[in-house]
Amino acid sequence: MKEIPYKIYLEENEMPTQWYNVRADMKKKPAPILNPATLEPVTLEELSHIFCEELAKQELDDQTPYFDIPEEIRNFYRMYRPAPLVRAYCLEKKLQTPAHIYYKFEGNNTSGSHKLNSAIAQAYYAKKQGLKGVTTETGAGQWGTALSMACSYFDLDCQVYMVKCSYEQKPFRREVMRTYGAQVTPSPSMNTKVGREINKQFPGTTGSLGCAISEAVEAATSQEGYRYVLGSVLTQVLLHQSVIGLETKAALDKYGVKADMIIGCAGGGSNLGGLISPFAGEILRGEANYDIIAVEPASCPSMTRGVYAYDFCDTGKVCPLAKMYTLGSGFIPSANHSGGLRYHGMSSVVSELYDQGILTARSVTQTDVFKAATEFAKVEGILPAPESSHAIKVAMDEALKCKETGEAKNIVFGLTGTGYFDMVAYQKFNDNEMSDYIPTDEELQKSFSTLPKVEN
Amino acid sequence: MKEIPYKIYLEENEMPTQWYNVRADMKKKPAPILNPATLEPVTLEELSHIFCEELAKQELDDQTPYFDIPEEIRNFYRMYRPAPLVRAYCLEKKLQTPAHIYYKFEGNNTSGSHKLNSAIAQAYYAKKQGLKGVTTETGAGQWGTALSMACSYFDLDCQVYMVKCSYEQKPFRREVMRTYGAQVTPSPSMNTKVGREINKQFPGTTGSLGCAISEAVEAATSQEGYRYVLGSVLTQVLLHQSVIGLETKAALDKYGVKADMIIGCAGGGSNLGGLISPFAGEILRGEANYDIIAVEPASCPSMTRGVYAYDFCDTGKVCPLAKMYTLGSGFIPSANHSGGLRYHGMSSVVSELYDQGILTARSVTQTDVFKAATEFAKVEGILPAPESSHAIKVAMDEALKCKETGEAKNIVFGLTGTGYFDMVAYQKFNDNEMSDYIPTDEELQKSFSTLPKVEN
Repeated sequence: MKEIPYKIYLEENEMPTQWYNVRADMKKKPAPILNPATLEPVTLEELSHIFCEELAKQELDDQTPYFDIPEEIRNFYRMYRPAPLVRAYCLEKKLQTPAHIYYKFEGNNTSGSHKLNSAIAQAYYAKKQGLKGVTTETGAGQWGTALSMACSYFDLDCQVYMVKCSYEQKPFRREVMRTYGAQVTPSPSMNTKVGREINKQFPGTTGSLGCAISEAVEAATSQEGYRYVLGSVLTQVLLHQSVIGLETKAALDKYGVKADMIIGCAGGGSNLGGLISPFAGEILRGEANYDIIAVEPASCPSMTRGVYAYDFCDTGKVCPLAKMYTLGSGFIPSANHSGGLRYHGMSSVVSELYDQGILTARSVTQTDVFKAATEFAKVEGILPAPESSHAIKVAMDEALKCKETGEAKNIVFGLTGTGYFDMVAYQKFNDNEMSDYIPTDEELQKSFSTLPKVEN
Repeated sequence: MKEIPYKIYLEENEMPTQWYNVRADMKKKPAPILNPATLEPVTLEELSHIFCEELAKQELDDQTPYFDIPEEIRNFYRMYRPAPLVRAYCLEKKLQTPAHIYYKFEGNNTSGSHKLNSAIAQAYYAKKQGLKGVTTETGAGQWGTALSMACSYFDLDCQVYMVKCSYEQKPFRREVMRTYGAQVTPSPSMNTKVGREINKQFPGTTGSLGCAISEAVEAATSQEGYRYVLGSVLTQVLLHQSVIGLETKAALDKYGVKADMIIGCAGGGSNLGGLISPFAGEILRGEANYDIIAVEPASCPSMTRGVYAYDFCDTGKVCPLAKMYTLGSGFIPSANHSGGLRYHGMSSVVSELYDQGILTARSVTQTDVFKAATEFAKVEGILPAPESSHAIKVAMDEALKCKETGEAKNIVFGLTGTGYFDMVAYQKFNDNEMSDYIPTDEELQKSFSTLPKVEN
């Protein structure tokens, strides 16, 4: 067996040329998304009012296993991909574990995360359709930054609604987006009808992703030549993000390493879905087995404490409904919660895979997450994003279990991004001012009451 | 000829195992550094009071061409090196130039710059000598961050004096350093004698590198088991940074590319010196020829408008004197100046190479630099550090000249780091609030008057 380097970089010609659509291998498919007006499955024609046509097609297609990645997108990928698969030798040594730890590092680009993988695809299809621009929401800011970069590359207008608490915590994120030519508006804003209503109903709200989505959708549908794009949750996004898992698998295969465990953080499911897709496909086809673990914040526990039901994808209830693990579209995580992973639901694909037992889920508290993040930063030399650090925490836990049992498991996790714009949260942690907030059962019950009455 | 990928990554086993000391190939050596008390060349014994012994040896050795890189340092390098040599296909296309543009990207690590290459070496030797900790200064913050990471890796205490205006402009830099366990103090501070004096003499000063150096040296020499380390200017630093140039040359050689032009930004000279060393060595040995261009800020023009003379390396006049291109140790760049490259002098090695005509120098204004930075960010997908953008500006200028002449030159430049912590400056630029300040001849004359009277 070849000696495994600290960083496995595939050659450019080893990069995936197709995205993988895990739905094609699912016998039981994710439930169709529904038109919020009729509660009937959304048609391609209806969906094309919100999304670009090509993306609407990808969204609805649960049969085609592979989609060619257009050359223009592959050229853009070459600017920052292949992303390295890192063997965490230093972390292993620090933990004194017999486990072999690998992480797929998606933070080596200016957007600071994996979000660019889908942003460039969505911008490309928008440009191809001759649109003027796109609108979107952003939470922690990675998606907005990624989309700004992608739009700038294809010379598209980019309007970003940024969850207000992130906008305030991360002024520099806004400047990166502006440097790439985007307009950034804190959400809820007074620009849109839905924003004004939410501001009226919840004065002083720090916002939520669901609410920012509603604003961005309204902005897209009320401007000629604009469409809405979204950085997570959607099946099209998971399709684009499959590039993470495909590269990871190719890198492991190149060195003859069989993963035992695959761990990813889960907010809307874009990174997790992308990372695990090819592995889940093997499980679904009966070719291999893996322990797949989704890690979510204890403060926003859609999988571990949510219900599997049709729900609105946005607070304003203008988007199609999806069947997913959800806390209810009215759920807004405590202001105490730092960083992303604040969406009330979970991608319908990940939800269905979870429901079928292809993966398990675990929740962790943010002080534990920052403890793991700091420890990781010190030995691996990368300051991780708070989101990514959820996966780090569980990977470290599992590596320590291996230390007890003596098993030399191959643990693979997704390091989705860097924390350079999360220093307000790190400062809180450094100053011992960070606390945890776990919603009570009563709070969740109240939030579940916002669920629509749709037969599942 | 092999097709050139977007990013050339050397294999780990192609990484340099030795640093290259360009002084060994210089017939006329840089002038010796002088003891500030006696004005005689500093002895190894004297220097060992300030620096670790091994580093003091490296500092004084102008004969040995190669130094082995210790295995512990090479292991650390593997966490973030080899750094990619990027072919700027997108920038070339944007500029419609026949030139081939390459940049060595040193920003793919959490310190955000090349500074980590020397930080880890200096921390290693400090640890090996059994020291408790080190003190240092930092300007823009990259060096302090790099040193914090390196000290954390080797479990050394790290005390950083940060130039006050950077400390205020970059609060998040401080948090990254703290996350890695460093103590960060704005300079001039009231902690040291020299800091108190400078504060008294120049109330409200925003500080300077020279002043922060004096504070850090005082802190090191007044604590048992501490030594002072420095991120630029010193010949030992240029030695460690030669890893940049060696990798660049190895990557170019691998693809049969002969550089015509090598461009680097120049503050104290660490990146420039490291990048150009192996190329300058070839020129000195008569083996090849290259156009080497040092780019400095018009607001701190040590090479283009300074004098070549012995000067103090620090405002407090406690460090050895070096013969260098300098504006005088009393020079403090206008508060208008953003980012690093604010040192009053230039590494004695780079100065001597410049004096011998091995390289030329050029100065650029900061609004031009940020214009180039933004254009680069949009097409190459990397938000560059203001410092690095000085090199980008001149590389773009040269590529545009090629467009006029039709020459397909190979232009190589150093992209030393990322600008994620420079968003205050980007914001100024985005808001059209950035201006330029070029010191007048009278101001420089006044500053030259602070030069010591030493025979050159």
